[in-house]
Amino acid sequence: MSEGRISRQLRTELDELAPLMRFFDDSAWAKRQREPGICDFVAGNPHEPPLPELVESLRSAALPRSDTWFAYPMSEPDARETVSGAIRDRLGMQIPPDDVLMTTGAFGAFAALFPAIADPGDEVVYLKPPWFFYASMIRLAGATPVGVSLEPPSFDLDPDAIASALTERTRAVLINSPQNPTGRIYGEPELDHLAEVLTERSERNGRPIYLVSDEAYRHIRYDDRSFVSPTSRYPSSFMVYTYGKTLLAPGERVGYVAFPPGLDGKEELRDAIKLSQMSGGWLFPNTILQHALPELDRYSIDIKHLERKRDRMVDALRGMGYELQVPEGTFYLLPKAPIANDLRFTEMLAERDVFVLPGGLVDLPGYFRISLTASDDMIERSLAGFEAARRAAT
Amino acid sequence: MSEGRISRQLRTELDELAPLMRFFDDSAWAKRQREPGICDFVAGNPHEPPLPELVESLRSAALPRSDTWFAYPMSEPDARETVSGAIRDRLGMQIPPDDVLMTTGAFGAFAALFPAIADPGDEVVYLKPPWFFYASMIRLAGATPVGVSLEPPSFDLDPDAIASALTERTRAVLINSPQNPTGRIYGEPELDHLAEVLTERSERNGRPIYLVSDEAYRHIRYDDRSFVSPTSRYPSSFMVYTYGKTLLAPGERVGYVAFPPGLDGKEELRDAIKLSQMSGGWLFPNTILQHALPELDRYSIDIKHLERKRDRMVDALRGMGYELQVPEGTFYLLPKAPIANDLRFTEMLAERDVFVLPGGLVDLPGYFRISLTASDDMIERSLAGFEAARRAAT
Repeated sequence: MSEGRISRQLRTELDELAPLMRFFDDSAWAKRQREPGICDFVAGNPHEPPLPELVESLRSAALPRSDTWFAYPMSEPDARETVSGAIRDRLGMQIPPDDVLMTTGAFGAFAALFPAIADPGDEVVYLKPPWFFYASMIRLAGATPVGVSLEPPSFDLDPDAIASALTERTRAVLINSPQNPTGRIYGEPELDHLAEVLTERSERNGRPIYLVSDEAYRHIRYDDRSFVSPTSRYPSSFMVYTYGKTLLAPGERVGYVAFPPGLDGKEELRDAIKLSQMSGGWLFPNTILQHALPELDRYSIDIKHLERKRDRMVDALRGMGYELQVPEGTFYLLPKAPIANDLRFTEMLAERDVFVLPGGLVDLPGYFRISLTASDDMIERSLAGFEAARRAAT
Repeated sequence: MSEGRISRQLRTELDELAPLMRFFDDSAWAKRQREPGICDFVAGNPHEPPLPELVESLRSAALPRSDTWFAYPMSEPDARETVSGAIRDRLGMQIPPDDVLMTTGAFGAFAALFPAIADPGDEVVYLKPPWFFYASMIRLAGATPVGVSLEPPSFDLDPDAIASALTERTRAVLINSPQNPTGRIYGEPELDHLAEVLTERSERNGRPIYLVSDEAYRHIRYDDRSFVSPTSRYPSSFMVYTYGKTLLAPGERVGYVAFPPGLDGKEELRDAIKLSQMSGGWLFPNTILQHALPELDRYSIDIKHLERKRDRMVDALRGMGYELQVPEGTFYLLPKAPIANDLRFTEMLAERDVFVLPGGLVDLPGYFRISLTASDDMIERSLAGFEAARRAAT
């Protein structure tokens, strides 16, 4: 009975994500990530003290105001009101509280959403280089992920390339703006073009192709760039948001799926996603987070500080001869590795106590990803390592 | 395009769970559950102030001790150590920390576990009357739920009935002890008999039939009854636990899947379940809960108080002529409705401000479920309503 201990579906995921899991479990970074003195640019994780106002809000929200304070949460009225107001104030969109479904961050939003809209045989288009888990989450919902490559060096949104990936089985197109890991923010012209493409194909297919808009980095923007929610340009959309980036506290999971005005069949979708949240593992945020949300929504990490870290790194790396674009948003820089084997190059950096993500793990071999959530101190200490590794490689 | 807005898989769930969703969304209870003065026996939710030590631990664990305090959590070392020690001290079982996977309660445990072990076509046997979500969670993992009825009035575990439901496609048998809603705790003889049945059939099938042991109510036991983990009698088992019942705080989701000694292929299973947790929606408990766990593990609601509530209710209801067994554990009483239509009878109770769960919602028509998490005050105020509804019905 050595065969058949785990399911075929998880066997597939283990095979598909084997390089990522090896990196998370067995790489030099996995072994040394808690060592003081290293420079850790791997994940969008905090490396500076948490926001004091975050801590205070969580502590305050843990004080019970009723006997049912810690009862089973679903999408709680105060949290939904808060989100509805935030979307109105920050995006200028009118989304009533009932059209906000509170989730355990963007992870929980996708885990609830994909099974609610897609069946086995359905296709979900996503853009590459992608966030680690898109394809895996689509497959586990039973659907088929279809990757469309963004073209370097600009990684522009290309509605025509998306159009040619659409079929009669396409159920959704998943986009992320600002985009992890390319740092691109998509503008109105290309979003409008995408909306035309999706409208045309939806009509041809006789059922809507949904646009799933991952807006996790919506408030992580540089140079005072504006942001347009893709959901405001195409009504058959879902807006997905997590507070994990803006608060830089991914360990306390709170976010949502919201329905833009004009989405058809809201009641049916609301019921389906809610039940998907329940049977998918009670994917509603914990009570403390929902009680705290009216306060948490007002807080943010210091974006100007992040921008200074971006500028420092971009200038320093370019000065050393690295090729990279200036990101418009997100936590990430995406330099080209000086040698074709990005994994090998990240090992050369690791030997110099500098840890970054190999591009191959996000379908972008030949690049590596730097997270600007590293501390100023890590950044300064890392520069000699970046310089030395580049010299050794070339 | 009015068709095809939601997936067929969620359409099926909405149909299957329609009575439950109607009750949660549109019943008199749904409308009146926050009204002061009602007597709410519907769910295993708190109706008395939270444990002060729970509040203190959560507030304390929200104070950061490191820059990475709110970073992405997985199964954190301190939490796993705590669980390993608790299992050793309370169950006498040796389970090393590595064999504990921290989850967002039992919901998160099942959502991660079922896809990791079962594929489309595989069958998972569960016992009826069941917890609300077993069948739905099994289906959403792609597998087929197979219900086996427990026989009233005793609702004994019946390994022979389970044996006759096993096929070459059976992947797991899911049992719950103490059992919601029947209140039964299963003893060693019937667990050993079940182990024999599963061992024999696993050999015949050429792959293991897993026993999934839902131990959510493990510490909610009356009359100083002992508890034997079903996982200690059959090595191809998974122990599922949530702190939501013992702390009566289901809104802060923390629990685990643990591997008993003797389970084969632990490394493969650990990898598969971990990846299933990630791609299933990051089903790891939030950071505050994992930081707090060494303290939380020591706390419990007052079981003797619950026992007094049980005795008060059982005596009062029997005195009125209701038929019911005395539960050995769990939060629940399961009286027979005085009329065959349990939904109608629960409406008669609701007219008297007494809210209970119709048995039909847990595949047990003709009964209703009372949660003893109601306050003493609710219990006393409810008795006239129970009496009057019974008179009106008979």
